[in-house]
Amino acid sequence: MSEEIRLDFQRPERVGFDEAILCARKSDAQLVTIMDRVLEQGESCLMTRLEPEVFDRFPAHHRARVDYDAVSRMGYFNWSRPRTTGPAQIAVVSAGSSDMPQAAEVIRTLTYFGAPTRQFIDIGVAGLWRLLGNVEELQKFPVIVAIAGMDGALPSVLGGLVPGVMICLPTSTGYGVSHSGQTALNAALASCAPGLTVVNIDNGYGAACAAYRALNMIRKAASLAQGC
Amino acid sequence: MSEEIRLDFQRPERVGFDEAILCARKSDAQLVTIMDRVLEQGESCLMTRLEPEVFDRFPAHHRARVDYDAVSRMGYFNWSRPRTTGPAQIAVVSAGSSDMPQAAEVIRTLTYFGAPTRQFIDIGVAGLWRLLGNVEELQKFPVIVAIAGMDGALPSVLGGLVPGVMICLPTSTGYGVSHSGQTALNAALASCAPGLTVVNIDNGYGAACAAYRALNMIRKAASLAQGC
Amino acid sequence: MSEEIRLDFQRPERVGFDEAILCARKSDAQLVTIMDRVLEQGESCLMTRLEPEVFDRFPAHHRARVDYDAVSRMGYFNWSRPRTTGPAQIAVVSAGSSDMPQAAEVIRTLTYFGAPTRQFIDIGVAGLWRLLGNVEELQKFPVIVAIAGMDGALPSVLGGLVPGVMICLPTSTGYGVSHSGQTALNAALASCAPGLTVVNIDNGYGAACAAYRALNMIRKAASLAQGC
Amino acid sequence: MSEEIRLDFQRPERVGFDEAILCARKSDAQLVTIMDRVLEQGESCLMTRLEPEVFDRFPAHHRARVDYDAVSRMGYFNWSRPRTTGPAQIAVVSAGSSDMPQAAEVIRTLTYFGAPTRQFIDIGVAGLWRLLGNVEELQKFPVIVAIAGMDGALPSVLGGLVPGVMICLPTSTGYGVSHSGQTALNAALASCAPGLTVVNIDNGYGAACAAYRALNMIRKAASLAQGC
Amino acid sequence: MSEEIRLDFQRPERVGFDEAILCARKSDAQLVTIMDRVLEQGESCLMTRLEPEVFDRFPAHHRARVDYDAVSRMGYFNWSRPRTTGPAQIAVVSAGSSDMPQAAEVIRTLTYFGAPTRQFIDIGVAGLWRLLGNVEELQKFPVIVAIAGMDGALPSVLGGLVPGVMICLPTSTGYGVSHSGQTALNAALASCAPGLTVVNIDNGYGAACAAYRALNMIRKAASLAQGC
Amino acid sequence: MSEEIRLDFQRPERVGFDEAILCARKSDAQLVTIMDRVLEQGESCLMTRLEPEVFDRFPAHHRARVDYDAVSRMGYFNWSRPRTTGPAQIAVVSAGSSDMPQAAEVIRTLTYFGAPTRQFIDIGVAGLWRLLGNVEELQKFPVIVAIAGMDGALPSVLGGLVPGVMICLPTSTGYGVSHSGQTALNAALASCAPGLTVVNIDNGYGAACAAYRALNMIRKAASLAQGC
Amino acid sequence: MSEEIRLDFQRPERVGFDEAILCARKSDAQLVTIMDRVLEQGESCLMTRLEPEVFDRFPAHHRARVDYDAVSRMGYFNWSRPRTTGPAQIAVVSAGSSDMPQAAEVIRTLTYFGAPTRQFIDIGVAGLWRLLGNVEELQKFPVIVAIAGMDGALPSVLGGLVPGVMICLPTSTGYGVSHSGQTALNAALASCAPGLTVVNIDNGYGAACAAYRALNMIRKAASLAQGC
Amino acid sequence: MSEEIRLDFQRPERVGFDEAILCARKSDAQLVTIMDRVLEQGESCLMTRLEPEVFDRFPAHHRARVDYDAVSRMGYFNWSRPRTTGPAQIAVVSAGSSDMPQAAEVIRTLTYFGAPTRQFIDIGVAGLWRLLGNVEELQKFPVIVAIAGMDGALPSVLGGLVPGVMICLPTSTGYGVSHSGQTALNAALASCAPGLTVVNIDNGYGAACAAYRALNMIRKAASLAQGC
Repeated sequence: MSEEIRLDFQRPERVGFDEAILCARKSDAQLVTIMDRVLEQGESCLMTRLEPEVFDRFPAHHRARVDYDAVSRMGYFNWSRPRTTGPAQIAVVSAGSSDMPQAAEVIRTLTYFGAPTRQFIDIGVAGLWRLLGNVEELQKFPVIVAIAGMDGALPSVLGGLVPGVMICLPTSTGYGVSHSGQTALNAALASCAPGLTVVNIDNGYGAACAAYRALNMIRKAASLAQGC
Repeated sequence: MSEEIRLDFQRPERVGFDEAILCARKSDAQLVTIMDRVLEQGESCLMTRLEPEVFDRFPAHHRARVDYDAVSRMGYFNWSRPRTTGPAQIAVVSAGSSDMPQAAEVIRTLTYFGAPTRQFIDIGVAGLWRLLGNVEELQKFPVIVAIAGMDGALPSVLGGLVPGVMICLPTSTGYGVSHSGQTALNAALASCAPGLTVVNIDNGYGAACAAYRALNMIRKAASLAQGC
Repeated sequence: MSEEIRLDFQRPERVGFDEAILCARKSDAQLVTIMDRVLEQGESCLMTRLEPEVFDRFPAHHRARVDYDAVSRMGYFNWSRPRTTGPAQIAVVSAGSSDMPQAAEVIRTLTYFGAPTRQFIDIGVAGLWRLLGNVEELQKFPVIVAIAGMDGALPSVLGGLVPGVMICLPTSTGYGVSHSGQTALNAALASCAPGLTVVNIDNGYGAACAAYRALNMIRKAASLAQGC
Repeated sequence: MSEEIRLDFQRPERVGFDEAILCARKSDAQLVTIMDRVLEQGESCLMTRLEPEVFDRFPAHHRARVDYDAVSRMGYFNWSRPRTTGPAQIAVVSAGSSDMPQAAEVIRTLTYFGAPTRQFIDIGVAGLWRLLGNVEELQKFPVIVAIAGMDGALPSVLGGLVPGVMICLPTSTGYGVSHSGQTALNAALASCAPGLTVVNIDNGYGAACAAYRALNMIRKAASLAQGC
Repeated sequence: MSEEIRLDFQRPERVGFDEAILCARKSDAQLVTIMDRVLEQGESCLMTRLEPEVFDRFPAHHRARVDYDAVSRMGYFNWSRPRTTGPAQIAVVSAGSSDMPQAAEVIRTLTYFGAPTRQFIDIGVAGLWRLLGNVEELQKFPVIVAIAGMDGALPSVLGGLVPGVMICLPTSTGYGVSHSGQTALNAALASCAPGLTVVNIDNGYGAACAAYRALNMIRKAASLAQGC
Repeated sequence: MSEEIRLDFQRPERVGFDEAILCARKSDAQLVTIMDRVLEQGESCLMTRLEPEVFDRFPAHHRARVDYDAVSRMGYFNWSRPRTTGPAQIAVVSAGSSDMPQAAEVIRTLTYFGAPTRQFIDIGVAGLWRLLGNVEELQKFPVIVAIAGMDGALPSVLGGLVPGVMICLPTSTGYGVSHSGQTALNAALASCAPGLTVVNIDNGYGAACAAYRALNMIRKAASLAQGC
Repeated sequence: MSEEIRLDFQRPERVGFDEAILCARKSDAQLVTIMDRVLEQGESCLMTRLEPEVFDRFPAHHRARVDYDAVSRMGYFNWSRPRTTGPAQIAVVSAGSSDMPQAAEVIRTLTYFGAPTRQFIDIGVAGLWRLLGNVEELQKFPVIVAIAGMDGALPSVLGGLVPGVMICLPTSTGYGVSHSGQTALNAALASCAPGLTVVNIDNGYGAACAAYRALNMIRKAASLAQGC
Repeated sequence: MSEEIRLDFQRPERVGFDEAILCARKSDAQLVTIMDRVLEQGESCLMTRLEPEVFDRFPAHHRARVDYDAVSRMGYFNWSRPRTTGPAQIAVVSAGSSDMPQAAEVIRTLTYFGAPTRQFIDIGVAGLWRLLGNVEELQKFPVIVAIAGMDGALPSVLGGLVPGVMICLPTSTGYGVSHSGQTALNAALASCAPGLTVVNIDNGYGAACAAYRALNMIRKAASLAQGC
């Protein structure tokens, strides 16, 4: 039973951004093999769901090449691309400090992709004026990632107030009938605010990719228009 | 197999309000027997979930004694109690016109109990300014019944803005992941707005009873205080 | 109990497109009142989930103002805006002919908003070459609505092949463990293809609104870029 | 990525009671920041779901300001308000000693708010006479929090015997089809005893807030009545 | 494709009672074939879930041999066994008149088996004194079938008061979180009253069979004891 | 907040057997208090779900009075009643060695109650001849507890072969769609073998109580019959 | 919005058998278009889930070309292939006459594919000897389709007795916790009988295709072996 | 309470392959007893779900007889059968390296049975060309085990491209709406690719047994054909 791991280095050409390595459920040996392949190809990669204790077990020469963040549980491996400048076009809005890890995963992923973001926190609906004070600002963003657990009411309220692309990221915050994020997910999907889109529970990486797809199309349109 | 139906005419003494007859799943014969008993005792009763076609099959002399409303599907049987005067202390707030039957069930039940209500409609979160324009008024009500289907975000937003007793009535409005009201129910229960209470999906009668329990305690406290 | 329906004619200014009237669960009387209000304001409106038999019961002078389509169960009320020209930037892709009503709802909504679309049908994964033959074309679209019921595998396959904004619309097609669209919904959310976004089951109107939000931001970017 | 935590010190003015800090899922650093803010403002706060081991990791000068209780997992931070006197108006009724942590959360929260309570324990329906022996006493309370796990039959039985505001708190006690409290929750919601209201599973803090809303309205009515 | 229906005429020898024919989902032709077989063998049979309209379509010579009851939707086919005398040893207790069809199914099945029953109705927990007034009587029954929908609290209360074999029959009465009887089923299974047993939702026939198994064993023990 | 634990020493008079103490979720302090009460009253008690590590933390003078068994996780506290003699009338049948803890809980509970049992193990349906070889013996038992996890097919097969009282005990053995015993539970409830009754998942104590109720009624009938 | 239906006439080359047309959810117009295409290509097709009333609305010249069977709700369109001879290698086993439509769907599909079958009916586990009497015969079949609703115990019992390829087809027969076939499905999947495979609830067509795949491979192996 | 474990050494004669010992939930003592029985009989056995720490606690003389693999968590006990030669007829296809343990369980089981396999890894649909590059090869295999977690799209795509027996093994890989493999399971069952069969989540042993049943029938057909 021989095992061969094949990475998808052609993904940027097809979909516009790099493959990420989901570290959860991979053995240490598998992760080391992946990093070796990435080095051989002279590539970099984004590592998601990388628990601190797994990172600590990496061989020293690999660990030295990882820019690791424990809040988002993400690592940038062999990464040195300079940060893109320009104004942030993606807003990352979250309701409470309990959702910080998911917000961090969104922001760190977009940073890796070279897309600057602006974070708005503690924008929950139970303290409505905090949200209302930011509406004018939020209306200017072409892409918004709205993060919410528990009852997931934030996306509904926000979706009726802003025109941008709305990507809702439900989180597993909460207990009892929160059902590990299922209630927040369903509330966002069933929202009467029109045109909300939703990703899987706690899938900060996926929300960031969706935001980046939209940003890519916006940038491409702008660059085509400038061309003429 | 002999069948005997016993009604609970002592309920007002114990819990403060009349028993209601849930007409769904009862046969025509059972309903007629119940109405006969009520008449024999010189009592009145409230009939819930009374479908128009069932009402139409009632014997004429019973039908004549029913004050029937098709929107709420409720009948007042043998009822002539005068409407209580005084200002409304219970607000009934709903998000959309699709929730009208449930709102009507709440209001009709409270009318039967002698409790005046005030209705606020189209107070959904997707058009937030409609809600905001009524907040000051709603803050004055000691009891609020908040009705919402789909994503059920209304109670969360309202609960962070008003001090009164909050009774959330989720409705089966919606489709797909609305899951016949389960999502609205769970969202209200998981809300981060503190102190919300919830009743069963589409249970307008139950929400009204809960509101009436609170009103009763408030009136009793006021009348005791006036006594000293 | 007086009832007042308030429509949201300011929505276009806030979120960029018109409010739609969800006709399901509204009484005939409520729908007529809404149409009267729309006429009074000199506005038009989009009516969704309008069943043929409900439409047939409309008063003749209202029915005459409705451009009705039975497949999508949609009506354009008092609508005469000319169709926007220019190339289609939104692709609407569906797996089977069973998903035609949902595809029609997406396309009819976008037509109402003035956004031309291009439809790709019978692009299911069980006959993969039908999909592969269209990939090159689909890679050119900045926005794709991918419609799938049953196992919902289409969005996963497509998402790994194209760079545009991906909006997945799960449908209630299927039986048994399809669970009325829940399996297709979950499969799209759990997809390993990165950056997919999802809307509620059978929510063609919502998918169209999400697509229109993205298109709006793309057009705005292009027009800003052209300005400089 | 800068993070700013904003607390809601205006909540008492709006809804009548303080914000609480849900400690679960917050990092140690976040909790310390929150306590620093509270001290800066000269405020106090209630900390819920504060596990003993998290409390033990607090800096000594913060730990010294916390009145901590391990059964309810709650802390009073920087709190010195004197206990309100007067008779208890809120009864806290529980079925078994397994529900003690939830009962303690209700009582501790109300103590913090200055509302005296009276606890009734081992009032389960499987030993009915224990409940019956307390009915006369329970009928005098304007507000009752009824706590029950497993089959959740207590609220149904109690609700048919007493006139006060009934707030049901389902608990995750039990196994198998108890489904971590879902069965107790559903049983309370589906109860044929009229006018029961329900909060989320194990949400002792929420039940206490709901009870306090009712108490507040009762006190206000009494004080208004005394005024005339 | 030839189809042969084989009936289980040896069941009484093995398990002590006759096979019943579940009529739901069988075609008219299948039912007629079954009745022909029964007649050929000179046997009788019990028909369950036999809808009135299906019964009306039976050939006249078959219909004439059916003792049909519309409330329980049951037929006795070719049945003339005399009713067993002696005191009732099985109590059939139900909470409300909505559960009458299920109670009738239990009683009719046991009548067919020759087991006299005694029915107690309107024994719900929301009006507790109705139940308490019958406890002394119920304690004398060796077997009790307790029927309840909605919150299913009746079996829990009864189970703590009587020593007999307790068979709980949950019904699909109710709406919303009653989940078509699932909540009543789970509440009975999770009950803290010890030694309750449960059958499928609305399975009156099954509850009767379970009661009959217990009765059979009791009768056998008595007859063995008398023998010595 | 004073806490008082009241035990139900009158249960044997009402329902025929002792109360048991469910140790799960009780604190060490609560368990010690309970044992103190039992000693004060000169009673004994059965302790269920008593984990070894909890038992090990008991004070030495309490631990000395506990007859503890780690497989069933049960303790007999202060118990010295002599074992009842006579032939076993209750059969305990299980499919695999993975269900041994639940079988042990049934047997240990019945031993405490003074009811001898006979155990049949490895009687699964996947090796049918093991079951068939025991059918003749099993047909003689008036009460059978049938234990099964995974697909729960054993009770269905057995129920069609024996006449005694059938009590099915589903277990949480299995993975994936076994859903922690829910599939075995549902299979037993939906069985086409008539007259099966079911208890909660892993509720060996409850199954034993149900068996004991039946045994009690059988013994009582025999003793009454012998009397005449 | 132009609609083009593309049929998959190359499927036999790829997977070994024809595409079938799932008629449910297709409009009359769509079905007619499909039949026209099939005729144009000189092909035949299998139509599944074709309700009698839909078939009756077909144009006469299409209806004349359909070999329709109401029990299985299937049509053979433009089909004249002669029935393959040789002994049946696929056994179709079902538990009750309620599962006849699903059994018919399996058999009719295999007949269309040219694979003879042998049907075994009333082989349920509640009457075990009916199954045992056929075991020796069933052990000779290389492929068995085992059909069962309710508790789904048949596949478990059969799977421990025969060596052939086992394909379980759960059906939606039953009520309550049968959950429209979900319990039978889960029981088959969780079976302790090794090597069972399962298809979707009521998916007789799918079960037949799976059986045909196995038969195809067996025939191919035999024909290769004969070649040498 | 005496406990006797009976192993099923006759299984190979009935169903064609050995019984396996599911080690999960068995005590160390039970496992040792089983191994002793196997040795006494001079047999070997396959041990599944054998965790490394359980294996490490085996007595040395047993541990020495176990060929253990930590990835698949499987042991071959007392096994020395030589590996069958000949070309692999079973393909084991998996989407990602996270599914490696399940793939290993399939392969190790088949190795024990003497059936050579060929493994294809990283054949996910998100990188479609990896799958397409192997289609021609995969079309030659008479039996394919397709392993997939998350959205489970791989079996659908593969099933439309190959003619062999398709056995889908869903895995618990993923988070959120992956629901521990339930989404992958449902997607495979609801697939529009015809003739897929499915086994329980993470049931690599079961998938291998199903594959071996098919292989056995194929081999038998070939050997019969060669005989003539």
